[in-house]
Amino acid sequence: MPSSHGGDKPDETLDVVGIGNAIVDVFAQADDSLLDKNGLIKGTMALIDADRARALYAQMGQAVEVSGGSVANSMAGVASLGGRAAYIGKVAADQLGEVFSHDLRTVGVAFDTRPLVGGAPTARCLVMVTSDAQRTLNTFLGACIELGPNDIDEALIKRSKVTYLEGYLWDPPAAKEAFLKASRIAQKAGRKTALSLSDPFCVQRHRTEFLELVERHVDILFANEHEICALYQVERLEDAMAAVRGRCEVAAITLSDKGSVVLVGDETFAIAVEPVSRVLDTTGAGDLYAAGFLYGYARGRAPGHCGRLGAICAAEVISHYGARPECALDELVARKLRD
Amino acid sequence: MPSSHGGDKPDETLDVVGIGNAIVDVFAQADDSLLDKNGLIKGTMALIDADRARALYAQMGQAVEVSGGSVANSMAGVASLGGRAAYIGKVAADQLGEVFSHDLRTVGVAFDTRPLVGGAPTARCLVMVTSDAQRTLNTFLGACIELGPNDIDEALIKRSKVTYLEGYLWDPPAAKEAFLKASRIAQKAGRKTALSLSDPFCVQRHRTEFLELVERHVDILFANEHEICALYQVERLEDAMAAVRGRCEVAAITLSDKGSVVLVGDETFAIAVEPVSRVLDTTGAGDLYAAGFLYGYARGRAPGHCGRLGAICAAEVISHYGARPECALDELVARKLRD
Repeated sequence: MPSSHGGDKPDETLDVVGIGNAIVDVFAQADDSLLDKNGLIKGTMALIDADRARALYAQMGQAVEVSGGSVANSMAGVASLGGRAAYIGKVAADQLGEVFSHDLRTVGVAFDTRPLVGGAPTARCLVMVTSDAQRTLNTFLGACIELGPNDIDEALIKRSKVTYLEGYLWDPPAAKEAFLKASRIAQKAGRKTALSLSDPFCVQRHRTEFLELVERHVDILFANEHEICALYQVERLEDAMAAVRGRCEVAAITLSDKGSVVLVGDETFAIAVEPVSRVLDTTGAGDLYAAGFLYGYARGRAPGHCGRLGAICAAEVISHYGARPECALDELVARKLRD
Repeated sequence: MPSSHGGDKPDETLDVVGIGNAIVDVFAQADDSLLDKNGLIKGTMALIDADRARALYAQMGQAVEVSGGSVANSMAGVASLGGRAAYIGKVAADQLGEVFSHDLRTVGVAFDTRPLVGGAPTARCLVMVTSDAQRTLNTFLGACIELGPNDIDEALIKRSKVTYLEGYLWDPPAAKEAFLKASRIAQKAGRKTALSLSDPFCVQRHRTEFLELVERHVDILFANEHEICALYQVERLEDAMAAVRGRCEVAAITLSDKGSVVLVGDETFAIAVEPVSRVLDTTGAGDLYAAGFLYGYARGRAPGHCGRLGAICAAEVISHYGARPECALDELVARKLRD
C-alpha cells in the first residue's frame, strides 16, 4: 500500500512529472433542453466563473464526484504501469482538494504542491452526460488560477526524465509562467518536455503561443486530429503532419478509433487501435494514451512500442466509465504483449 | 426543473418527511487484505471516529463520492415516484454538505435543515467494495452528531402524512430526541410514524429502546429478516412475525431476493420479488422498498399494492450501481402496473 504522499523518494529518478489543472469532475445525466437553455455546445469544454458554476450546478440532476484533470489522469496511468510519477497542480485546502489529493497519492503518484488557503475553492468540471453518451464540460478553474512559478519544484523537474504539461495550463494566467519555468529547468537538465494540446478550442484560444511553444520548448507533442489541424490551420491530416514534422522530436497524433500515427524525424509509425469489446465512455482516452506513450518513452522504448502502450492504456479506460484506469495497467500490458 | 430548494410549498400536504443521518458515500474497490489488516468484518457497517476515518481513507484506493444516507435515498425515491417529500438531516456548511444538499434538492426533495457551522464536517461513509461484490461500510457521523430537537420543523411534520425515521438515528446522541419530538408531533396531529430498523447491528446496539419505540411510537415498521429476528431475539421468520404482529399498524418485512411479507392486523400479504435481468449492486434495495411502500401508503393504497410499489422501486435500484433511482420511478411504475 503506498504511503499517503505517494511513492516518491527524493533521490530517485522519476519517469514523468505532470503539471496540470487539478480538477474534480461532477457527473450528471442531462437532457438536451438543459444544454439549449444555457447556450451550451454539446461535446465541448467551456470555462466558467463561480457564479455560472453555481447556476449550472443548481440545474443539474443528482451527481457523482470523481477526481479528474487531464494530466492528473495521465499520471495515475503512469503509476499504474509501474512508472514513477509525480504531479504538480493547485487544489484548495478544502474537501474536494482532499479528495483530489487522496485519489492521486493512493495510486502512488507523488503530489506535494501546497494547497491554496483562503482563496478560491478546488476546481471542478461540471460534466453533463446526455442520452447520446456525449459529454458537455463546464470548468470552473477555482484554485488552479493560483498555480504559479513558485509551485515548480526545481529538484523534482530535474530528476524527472519527462516533464509533461497540458495546453489547458494556458487558460489560468500564472500557470503558463510555471509551465515555461518547468520547461526551462528540464531543458537545462537535459530532460525532455512533453505537451498535450488538450482541446481544439484551447488551441484556438492560444494558437500563436502554442506554435512558438512547440517550436522552442516541446520535445514530445500529443494531439488528436482536430487539435493538430487547428494548430496549423489546415483541414487534412497529411497537411498537419507535414506542418508538424521536424518541429519537435516526437509528435504523436491520435485518430480516435482509427489508431494513431507517431512522427519521429523522417519516419512515421502507424499504431493500430487496440480492440475493445465495448466502448462505454471515451473520456480519458487521450490522457491514457499519453500515459502509456510517456511511460514507454521514459523507459527507452522504440516509438512503435510507445504507441502500442498508449493504445493498450486508452483501450482500458474507454471500456468503463471514468477517466482513470480501473485495473493494474502493468499486468494488462504484460498480458497483451504476451498474446 | 425544480428550484434549488426542492419542490416544497409551505401550505401543501406532504406525503413523507424523512429524518436521517445525512451522509456522503465514498466508494472504492478494496482487497480482502485491507479489511483483514484493519479488523473490518465484511458486509457490515461500523461507526468510526475522525482519526479512524482518516486512517482508513488513506489506505483506500481512488474513490467516487456519491450522496447517500438511508432515509435520504428513500426520499429521493418518493420524489421520483411523483410524491411530495421533505428531508431533515444535518450536514456541515462545507463542500460535501453542498453536494448532499444539491443531490436531494435537485430531485425535488425539500431540504432546509440548517447546516452546522464551525463544527464537525459532513458525515461520510467509507464503502469498500471487494471483488465478491460485498460492501463493508465505515461511517464517520461528523455533523450528524449535532442533529437535535431544534432541527425538527413542527409545521413540516404536521403537514406530512408520514414521518419516516431510521434506526441509525439512535447512534448520534441528540438525534433520538429529535426523533421522539417528531414522532410526538406527528401522533398529536393524527399523522403516521414509520421506522426502518436499518441494520441488525444497529438493532443490537439499541434493542431495548427499539422495542419500546415500536410499541409506543411506530405505525409502520420496515425491517429485513435479520433485523426483525435481532429485535425479537428469535431465529425463525415466523417467530419474528408472531412477535411483531399487532405491535404496530403495519410491519413490512423484506426477504431479500425472496420478496416481502406485509403484516396488517391479522392479515399477511405476500409480495413477490420483482424480476430483474441483472443484479448489479444491492445497495439501497431496502431504502427504495420503503420509498415505494410509503408513497403508496400516503396515497391510500392497499397494503399489497404498497408492497408491489416497494418491490418495483427496489428492483430498479439494484439493477445499477448506487442507492438512488436513475430513472423516473413514476414512469417505471406506470409501465409495470400496465404490463
